[in-house]
Amino acid sequence: MVKVGIAAGYMTKFAEHWQRSLKDLAAESVVGLFEEAENITPDRIGITIVGNMASGQLIGQEHLGPLVVDHGGLLPAAGVKVEAAGASGALALRTGYLYIKSGLYDVALVVGVEKMTDQTRSAKITSVLSSASDQEWELQTGLTFAGSYALMTKAHFEKYGTNKRHIAAVSAKNHANAVYNAKAQFRRAFTIDQVVGAAMVADPLGLLDCSPASDGAAAVLLCSEKVINEITDTPVWITGSGHASDSLSLAQRENLHSMKATRLAGKQAYEQAGVEPDAIRVAEMHDNFSITEILGIEDLGFFLPGQGGPATLDGETQIGGKVTTNPSGGLKALGHPLGATGVAQAVEIFKQLRREVEPQRQADAEIGLTHSIGGTGSTAIVHVYQR
Amino acid sequence: MVKVGIAAGYMTKFAEHWQRSLKDLAAESVVGLFEEAENITPDRIGITIVGNMASGQLIGQEHLGPLVVDHGGLLPAAGVKVEAAGASGALALRTGYLYIKSGLYDVALVVGVEKMTDQTRSAKITSVLSSASDQEWELQTGLTFAGSYALMTKAHFEKYGTNKRHIAAVSAKNHANAVYNAKAQFRRAFTIDQVVGAAMVADPLGLLDCSPASDGAAAVLLCSEKVINEITDTPVWITGSGHASDSLSLAQRENLHSMKATRLAGKQAYEQAGVEPDAIRVAEMHDNFSITEILGIEDLGFFLPGQGGPATLDGETQIGGKVTTNPSGGLKALGHPLGATGVAQAVEIFKQLRREVEPQRQADAEIGLTHSIGGTGSTAIVHVYQR
Repeated sequence: MVKVGIAAGYMTKFAEHWQRSLKDLAAESVVGLFEEAENITPDRIGITIVGNMASGQLIGQEHLGPLVVDHGGLLPAAGVKVEAAGASGALALRTGYLYIKSGLYDVALVVGVEKMTDQTRSAKITSVLSSASDQEWELQTGLTFAGSYALMTKAHFEKYGTNKRHIAAVSAKNHANAVYNAKAQFRRAFTIDQVVGAAMVADPLGLLDCSPASDGAAAVLLCSEKVINEITDTPVWITGSGHASDSLSLAQRENLHSMKATRLAGKQAYEQAGVEPDAIRVAEMHDNFSITEILGIEDLGFFLPGQGGPATLDGETQIGGKVTTNPSGGLKALGHPLGATGVAQAVEIFKQLRREVEPQRQADAEIGLTHSIGGTGSTAIVHVYQR
Repeated sequence: MVKVGIAAGYMTKFAEHWQRSLKDLAAESVVGLFEEAENITPDRIGITIVGNMASGQLIGQEHLGPLVVDHGGLLPAAGVKVEAAGASGALALRTGYLYIKSGLYDVALVVGVEKMTDQTRSAKITSVLSSASDQEWELQTGLTFAGSYALMTKAHFEKYGTNKRHIAAVSAKNHANAVYNAKAQFRRAFTIDQVVGAAMVADPLGLLDCSPASDGAAAVLLCSEKVINEITDTPVWITGSGHASDSLSLAQRENLHSMKATRLAGKQAYEQAGVEPDAIRVAEMHDNFSITEILGIEDLGFFLPGQGGPATLDGETQIGGKVTTNPSGGLKALGHPLGATGVAQAVEIFKQLRREVEPQRQADAEIGLTHSIGGTGSTAIVHVYQR
């Protein structure tokens, strides 16, 4: 089978870009990518895959495939838009990877983008996020997206004795990393006490346990092994790609203290890559809520079930720890423009493995992983990368 | 490269399904498919690709990949949702085809679905359709989706002398075919005079030049050559798949009397399939407006530029004509539940080539084609099929 690698990666700053449109952000990510990868011209791009969750609901614009192709200067390339809620960017990456593996394309552009702050009513953002969950069976009862994650948090507390300081340590670590990341939305550190003491959103999750609404875009250039050396001498290979689903509604899950889809997607990716979890030294994890990173590092086998909280509090996931998680700042502090996030994770790992991030955030790893969740765990996508 | 074929196909009736939800329609398409293809069990499905345009805007539900996997009884298979406006179903087919070509999957389920009639305000439907066009540069000027197609119609009239009777002949033919199709939304014939005399929507397009708002779902089972004979002895192979883009806004097109993306996607598909346009004896064409079928049969080389209208009026695209177009009734009379349409087109061609449609609609063809348009021609996807 065709081997697929990343030849270049670029992301915009994640922020509240009040003065900029989705088009503008997506175009910056494409132009920025072409500036980084000087040995490629737009006419080489036969296919562009766009990850986006909810531009229809958020800005009244669908059909982002040709929109990004058009405003990226890539016409008449084919444009594909894929969606899997908060995992839309990871799904775009995986779809680009499979399009190249098909043998029909040697080069694919993957763009993730979301423009959330054109919606200024927080109730609208809450409703859009909730549309990743089961509309008929959950939303109509009044359960919000944060409320769903609060239920999972309580289940983990109950099962394993995890507490608020454990989950707060996730946010504190991710904010500490973001201080050094020029692309991050929140370059400000918080202590564990500050996270624990923040205003309540959905008990036990406080404001600093929750990722923000963000605007941003990210892009990677995927190539087959046949052509990648024309563009770069130091590609990062995608050695494993896993994807699994679970029910949309929480009521139908096996349990709420673990995400089955993450376990299955991780298993697929590890088997393809031929690695065990302890080979992973750097990982960009889905931390839309602080609890999600705890679930992820347990479900991916970095730590035993129930040990994710204590390990985080002990610093084992800090930069240079047993496994560095979210050196970018994660969804919490880098920001979470839904469809852009999964692509930005790949950009971060690409730059980590090439030693191109700020020195304070450098994890010195040879093998990396990205983990993306859609909804409350209904979609999980895991990729493994190697220099 | 891996050869990909269709092993089974099923569609719900297209209609205003007031009593049924998107979930319900999607589940019927999956269950119906498994009843048709008795030699396959759900555990063989590793991947499901869902085509849908606007469930977020229409019913407040995103994340249809795992939703369809879940309610189709296919957990924990991966679920992918793709979108390209009115070509979303065709994009789902093409993505499933490429996922199998990648070698990672031998079986893929492709589902198209849309639930439009939960929105009862026609202004909301108009706004959703328009979100396939350029929101910033066209919609804010007040240009509607039907208005955009009216501009293209006038350009074709001006360039080639096409007239209202020519385009009306498309609707009259498609309605005549739908009379015999049990799955069609409108099983009623109209004369050309009736079409020409219908109430005006956007000059020169009248009510009977426009496809309706519809609910429905369709599904096909795609397999690699390695496993397809376990399921059926009479597969239909996808021998060509083309996909191209054009600008979202009409102002940036080369001209308005032809769709460049169709020409490019058709060229790709013909070259892959190793056929010329005159080999195609049956085609499901995108006729969201009557003019679109005229543009399509010219851009795909069935007729010379400007000859599409006269050829249609002369009956050359009727069943048994030079090339039978829209034996199903087309978007106009079969119905147009946006994301379902492209998959339903594949179901029709699958059944046409296997001689499984109602005898009155049988085109007796060996090679077939489907043509799908997103927006005003910003996306074009073309597939070629052979027994």
